[in-house]
Amino acid sequence: MRATVMYGAGDVRVENVPDPVLVEPTDAVVRVTLACVCGSDLHPYRSMPASQDGAPMGHEFLGVVEEVGSEVTGLAVGDLVISPFAYSDNTCPFCREGFQTACQHGGWYGAGGVGGAQAEKIRVPQASGTLVPVPSDVDEALLPSLLTLSDVYLTGYHAAFMGKVSPGETVTVIGDGAVGLSAVLAAHQMGADKIILMGRHAARTDLGKKFGATDVVAERGADGVAQVLELTGGEGSHVVLEAVGHMPAYEQAYGIVRPGGVISRVGVPQYEDAPVGFGSLFGKNATLNGGPAPVRAYIEAAIPQVLSGEIDPGQVFDAEVSLDDVAEGYRLMDSREALKVLVRP
Amino acid sequence: MRATVMYGAGDVRVENVPDPVLVEPTDAVVRVTLACVCGSDLHPYRSMPASQDGAPMGHEFLGVVEEVGSEVTGLAVGDLVISPFAYSDNTCPFCREGFQTACQHGGWYGAGGVGGAQAEKIRVPQASGTLVPVPSDVDEALLPSLLTLSDVYLTGYHAAFMGKVSPGETVTVIGDGAVGLSAVLAAHQMGADKIILMGRHAARTDLGKKFGATDVVAERGADGVAQVLELTGGEGSHVVLEAVGHMPAYEQAYGIVRPGGVISRVGVPQYEDAPVGFGSLFGKNATLNGGPAPVRAYIEAAIPQVLSGEIDPGQVFDAEVSLDDVAEGYRLMDSREALKVLVRP
Repeated sequence: MRATVMYGAGDVRVENVPDPVLVEPTDAVVRVTLACVCGSDLHPYRSMPASQDGAPMGHEFLGVVEEVGSEVTGLAVGDLVISPFAYSDNTCPFCREGFQTACQHGGWYGAGGVGGAQAEKIRVPQASGTLVPVPSDVDEALLPSLLTLSDVYLTGYHAAFMGKVSPGETVTVIGDGAVGLSAVLAAHQMGADKIILMGRHAARTDLGKKFGATDVVAERGADGVAQVLELTGGEGSHVVLEAVGHMPAYEQAYGIVRPGGVISRVGVPQYEDAPVGFGSLFGKNATLNGGPAPVRAYIEAAIPQVLSGEIDPGQVFDAEVSLDDVAEGYRLMDSREALKVLVRP
Repeated sequence: MRATVMYGAGDVRVENVPDPVLVEPTDAVVRVTLACVCGSDLHPYRSMPASQDGAPMGHEFLGVVEEVGSEVTGLAVGDLVISPFAYSDNTCPFCREGFQTACQHGGWYGAGGVGGAQAEKIRVPQASGTLVPVPSDVDEALLPSLLTLSDVYLTGYHAAFMGKVSPGETVTVIGDGAVGLSAVLAAHQMGADKIILMGRHAARTDLGKKFGATDVVAERGADGVAQVLELTGGEGSHVVLEAVGHMPAYEQAYGIVRPGGVISRVGVPQYEDAPVGFGSLFGKNATLNGGPAPVRAYIEAAIPQVLSGEIDPGQVFDAEVSLDDVAEGYRLMDSREALKVLVRP
């Protein structure tokens, strides 16, 4: 089958590789119907050292079950399924507490002998716990929105969930990428009163407004902090959803968070150490949380929202490529010509 | 009147200073009945550069109202009152949200022209919002426990409150000082199932067991982390209450916190930057919070618990000095001969 392999920064290839097969009795093999390129795929696209072996790419997909292992329950060949971007048994203590990205038997696509999703087929470990079926007669126009439940929309949702967004609160979202816009949509769903979107790309912030942003702040750094403080009567934002992952975004976050407020991060931190002492978080009693989104915990509740048209998170897709053209998809996202790229194998 | 002034590391003096007078119409003057030495007073006691002017010391006290300004309501001369360690108007937006230590009109004793509480009398700004009356016929044996509502017990309580300790959870408290032991008591009150106390001073950890600790871990660093993981079936602690403020305690905290768990800090951080990235907090979806305890938010609910004997947090006091001997009180705490020292003016 054809699959996407990255051999180094900027070097994305589609190659013929062996078809995936069942390895464990808890595996399934899924034929990928729709996949996409993730903002987090751009990190290696910009910085991966050249490699002989290459890395299988892609971790967001919708597909049709082709084979199931002998211990797989609740899934049948032919089922249309959504996969979270991380697999999990959905039964271990951490899964039961809603943190499936910390599953004791879980892991990541594209690592540890498991392939990537920008491919014709993929092996899914812990298939019973991981895959969530959707009605197979679903309107095809809804498939992009259902695909966002694999990662991007529910990662934005996780930010808002951990931030405990409540009706009447002011929420500031840092970052106008697809996750940031998803966080706007989720905060709007949760009843936030005022949603300030920090971003400077008009096409993106316009979609942010459609998703529920009430204010847009294009300034960054100290100017951006000053703008948000002005918009909040000098008090700061109850909740800050940080969807970038770079240090300047973190610094903005603690600059604008209100005393007693929450900074919830879903942008994968490109730093390890950061200010947390009296002058940043502690003095304000600010809460810092977030992490890799356990989207598995949220998929079942989100499916009916998509099917009913209550939410339409698939609007983040503004470009589409075939699997053979996946390198062009990376280029479009890296250059910011596209917000988020669908890949159709 | 006599008041405690610190002139540099190890240099604590009791001096004659002018009696405090009403400055603002919202002030009160209180005669101090009981004060004490705080663990946080030991930071300057160990590191303050020599100073000509000196710094007024003390921020925890019970006393009797002697004078009230023209705009003070709800307080009368002769009232026995508890003061939180920070003053606040208790009406600003941050106070109403329960974060009185961020009050828009608040501040700290011993700073900005306001004296310290290790003194015969003290001026209390924002007296109506700050001071909480207690029945003046209260049993004198209960006064030390009521004094702990000024800071130490309710700082431990704040840690547990921000950690959202719930019945059935495992809570680990780092630090066997008076705040750490108070955090044990608060976590026990909130129904924690297993309370692990990390500390190595048997007299203190014994009091911790009396307060509700189910396990004591004397090891520190990697050994301490390994012990706590073993005690939690390898899963980690739902909540970690960090009552020290030094980096090794922070490192222990993220080492033992469970995925999705909370690290709540009330030890004033003696660092600004700390690990918060994928390898420490983010990967685990751990929450970091805490800060200067808004004890004002908790005093009213705690008073009846003390009066009824439900809690007896005053057991943290194991030494007493007169005001004239306050320097000996500092020495006893600095040398760890005493856990917490009462000061009786």
